[in-house]
Amino acid sequence: MTDAAASRQPGDASLGDAFHVFDTTLRDGAQREGINLSVADKLTIARHLDDFGVGFIEGGWPGANPRDTEFFRRAREEIDFRHARLVAFGATRRAGVAAADDPQVRALVDSRAPVVTIVAKAHDRHVELALRTTLEENLAMVRDTVEHLRERGRRVFVDCEHFFDGYQADPEYAKRVVRTAYEAGADVVVLCDTNGGMLPAQIQAVVRTVHADTGARLGIHAQDDTGCAVANTLAAVDAGATHVQCTANGYGERVGNANLFSVVAALQLKYGMKVLPEGALREMTRISHAIAEVVNLTPSTHQPYVGVSAFAHKAGLHASAIKVDPDLYQHIDPELVGNRLRMLVSDMAGRASIELKGQELGIDLSGDRELVGRIVERVKERELRGYSYEAADASFELLLREELLRGGAEERFRSFFTTESWRAIVENRPDGSHANEATVKLWAKGERIVSTAEGNGPVNALDRALRLALERIYPELAQMELVDYKVRILAGTHGTESTTRVLVSTGDGGGEWSTVGVADNVIAASWQALVDAYTYGLLRAGVEPQG
Amino acid sequence: MTDAAASRQPGDASLGDAFHVFDTTLRDGAQREGINLSVADKLTIARHLDDFGVGFIEGGWPGANPRDTEFFRRAREEIDFRHARLVAFGATRRAGVAAADDPQVRALVDSRAPVVTIVAKAHDRHVELALRTTLEENLAMVRDTVEHLRERGRRVFVDCEHFFDGYQADPEYAKRVVRTAYEAGADVVVLCDTNGGMLPAQIQAVVRTVHADTGARLGIHAQDDTGCAVANTLAAVDAGATHVQCTANGYGERVGNANLFSVVAALQLKYGMKVLPEGALREMTRISHAIAEVVNLTPSTHQPYVGVSAFAHKAGLHASAIKVDPDLYQHIDPELVGNRLRMLVSDMAGRASIELKGQELGIDLSGDRELVGRIVERVKERELRGYSYEAADASFELLLREELLRGGAEERFRSFFTTESWRAIVENRPDGSHANEATVKLWAKGERIVSTAEGNGPVNALDRALRLALERIYPELAQMELVDYKVRILAGTHGTESTTRVLVSTGDGGGEWSTVGVADNVIAASWQALVDAYTYGLLRAGVEPQG
Repeated sequence: MTDAAASRQPGDASLGDAFHVFDTTLRDGAQREGINLSVADKLTIARHLDDFGVGFIEGGWPGANPRDTEFFRRAREEIDFRHARLVAFGATRRAGVAAADDPQVRALVDSRAPVVTIVAKAHDRHVELALRTTLEENLAMVRDTVEHLRERGRRVFVDCEHFFDGYQADPEYAKRVVRTAYEAGADVVVLCDTNGGMLPAQIQAVVRTVHADTGARLGIHAQDDTGCAVANTLAAVDAGATHVQCTANGYGERVGNANLFSVVAALQLKYGMKVLPEGALREMTRISHAIAEVVNLTPSTHQPYVGVSAFAHKAGLHASAIKVDPDLYQHIDPELVGNRLRMLVSDMAGRASIELKGQELGIDLSGDRELVGRIVERVKERELRGYSYEAADASFELLLREELLRGGAEERFRSFFTTESWRAIVENRPDGSHANEATVKLWAKGERIVSTAEGNGPVNALDRALRLALERIYPELAQMELVDYKVRILAGTHGTESTTRVLVSTGDGGGEWSTVGVADNVIAASWQALVDAYTYGLLRAGVEPQG
Repeated sequence: MTDAAASRQPGDASLGDAFHVFDTTLRDGAQREGINLSVADKLTIARHLDDFGVGFIEGGWPGANPRDTEFFRRAREEIDFRHARLVAFGATRRAGVAAADDPQVRALVDSRAPVVTIVAKAHDRHVELALRTTLEENLAMVRDTVEHLRERGRRVFVDCEHFFDGYQADPEYAKRVVRTAYEAGADVVVLCDTNGGMLPAQIQAVVRTVHADTGARLGIHAQDDTGCAVANTLAAVDAGATHVQCTANGYGERVGNANLFSVVAALQLKYGMKVLPEGALREMTRISHAIAEVVNLTPSTHQPYVGVSAFAHKAGLHASAIKVDPDLYQHIDPELVGNRLRMLVSDMAGRASIELKGQELGIDLSGDRELVGRIVERVKERELRGYSYEAADASFELLLREELLRGGAEERFRSFFTTESWRAIVENRPDGSHANEATVKLWAKGERIVSTAEGNGPVNALDRALRLALERIYPELAQMELVDYKVRILAGTHGTESTTRVLVSTGDGGGEWSTVGVADNVIAASWQALVDAYTYGLLRAGVEPQG
């Protein structure tokens, strides 16, 4: 087998090989509690990571499970990598077996990945207790496996597992593992804080010493158990590491790994290094959220740089100052990472925030103190009942427009339709089948409309009945689709008796908007959010209310 | 006014004054998007923080809003602080006004808090653009306000806002602000990375220089915009800071603040410092989750030290090694912070994880390879359909017991009752009122039972109907109560047509257990989780199945 596979994955020549951004979302990231990736998920994530421009994508452990084996086959056939090289992960050969005879090592070669990372033990106790072999045999396992893979044309990185704990226990043995790997032909020896217990000062001191004593090219792999994985990664770079292993959104076992997005943003924006292709950083927020979608986790709202809250301001004090100069209150321009400044509507905010929010929505409120005061009061009153406008811009805009129109034709604005009543029935029959049925009774254009629909759940049935009732009068509804539906139970101490908040996101192909409903009942809260969603959608489509 | 208030809040003498753990959850933490605290919430959180043993609790800005003014009055009357001193937050006097004549400064005195933190501008551009005064007047404002508060017997800390950005722009002016505050009588001058853009190496260098050049006692206030707030706080301590400002769970504006729990755990467990009363750290996980409850945010599962995932292992590789020695794969003993080791049941896990999980539940599976294989298969199949046993131990135990009993009396075990059918109706009447009604038809002890109940939502109505039907036969149900109810929409791209996963936590006074249900319908998923919840509860109560 030759290096043919590598030629299909040339990497981005403009970035050179001097510094490696190595992503292990598909291998170490997948160890996060709650993540369970299909092959299709892994391929989608690999495409996002390649778009983002990381240098290396560790795809999994071929041979360890059929899913990873299939991933490497399909990635080779289906993805034309523009920036990244694909990496297979595996272990050193077993004790007492030649590398060529170890099926696990053979699977790494068979994956045809141009780069292989092998994990090696660097902590004496782990060698003895977990591997159950001698310290010398462990070194031979490292040497043989690296040489075997090098002979087959692979580029090899060696992950020294538990390196920092091992270094504390026996620094000389830990360094011998590094030297052995490097002398056998590993391109990079990666020092791993596998248990994640280190702090930046320790990492920096150890990396500096190991670098000086071994002369090896070093990488860093940090887990976040002390909340310092990003800082630990940067500390290692300060001490001479030129290869950083990270995961998208910091996914990983236990607390997680060093967050790829925080690390590259710091390297590019704070250190002034160029570690990604031109323009990549501006795609970071989008790519972070897209990967969260694929792994089926809600994007963290408070993630550095890319969270929706990362540049959100609610303090009245800050809001007034931001009117003067936004750079006074943000560490970088959010557009550099594809994010944006947001003003939050909240009862902690004063008039300045409401005016700025109006501005964001294209409505000038600055001239009308009485109107702004009325909006502040109404937001306060509703937030007290559990509404949250921070994540429901469309519902807030409806509230704002309603107040704007108070002076003129009272409440005319919301009257695309009025609700007389609705009902939803969920039934589990003796044969085990379900039935969900909803009936709505509405008035629109002076006409009373009764419609009934079935769905795969009560909210879905209500949604269908509502659309069925209105689509004849408002054909624009056919373009609209619910794209997300979230339920939050407030005051969770009372179990099923709690208040429920529903957030609905709706799209019409051209954009998305979010609405909120609150009730002591998930169905009633959903109904409110649906009514707001379609009302806003019709306004957005330029339809005139015809109540 | 004298220092009488202070005498009621003596602090914990055993810890001395050499190092300050200063909590600002109630002031800066409350700026987090999604947090909205009532006075009662603030009092509850203050009690938790005092229990935990922080030295200072910043309660808010008296005078700035009526809620904070009321908090200080009630905290003084209602809480007998054992460890903490209460701190009022405010600003320096306005430009051109004597401190004694500034109503904002007067409100700080009137709060009767023994300690006051005042925020001062330390960045020349902020003085000019946000305060709109001269650099000299800003210094006078700092001096006058500190002296005024000192004369009234208050201990004063000065927060230098935007200190690190200001230091980059004009280091001499930034240091003049520190000197002015310290010479006027401030006990601690706190250097704030208000915009959160700093990295540990920068923080360390600046704190070291300022400390050497001014001789002032320094504190650190770090925001988490680079994901380095904990590391930045520790870097400042390395450089001589002896006062750390943090918030519970890292709550705070934008990305958040330095996480109190991560910082104190690092100081105690990694630095070997004693910054909390004896035994406090073991309460950390409980207190972290309790505060999350009060602010009504789901506790972060992946938070360092205290997250439920922080010591959770799912990798098959790790699971085998943990059987040998748990310390090989954890950086600290989780009990030190009141957390625990968990083995996750997941389709990534192999037999070793299932065996360990059995062991955790007190069931020895190691002898039966075929049984373990059957359980692994069933877990895989159900996780594929959306079930998640990682957060539903009780449902997993039911599955495991079912498989255990397969050899003997087939499925007898689940037969406390069998379901014939159920139905839930939600109705919104023309007068705007809601009705929620559920009917269940069950068999128990050979008897057919039909019961109907109303509730404030369809799930609550079903829950009541189920209990009504069974309580006569199983009076133990009266002890059980639903304590949490969570809905997760899977595959969110189809809006209301998605699959729904419901997690229910149930308690009986002596403990809590979690169960899971999955269906295309929130009501049906809830029903499954409720059935598992009561089945497990009855088993737990030692009741014999009587189907």
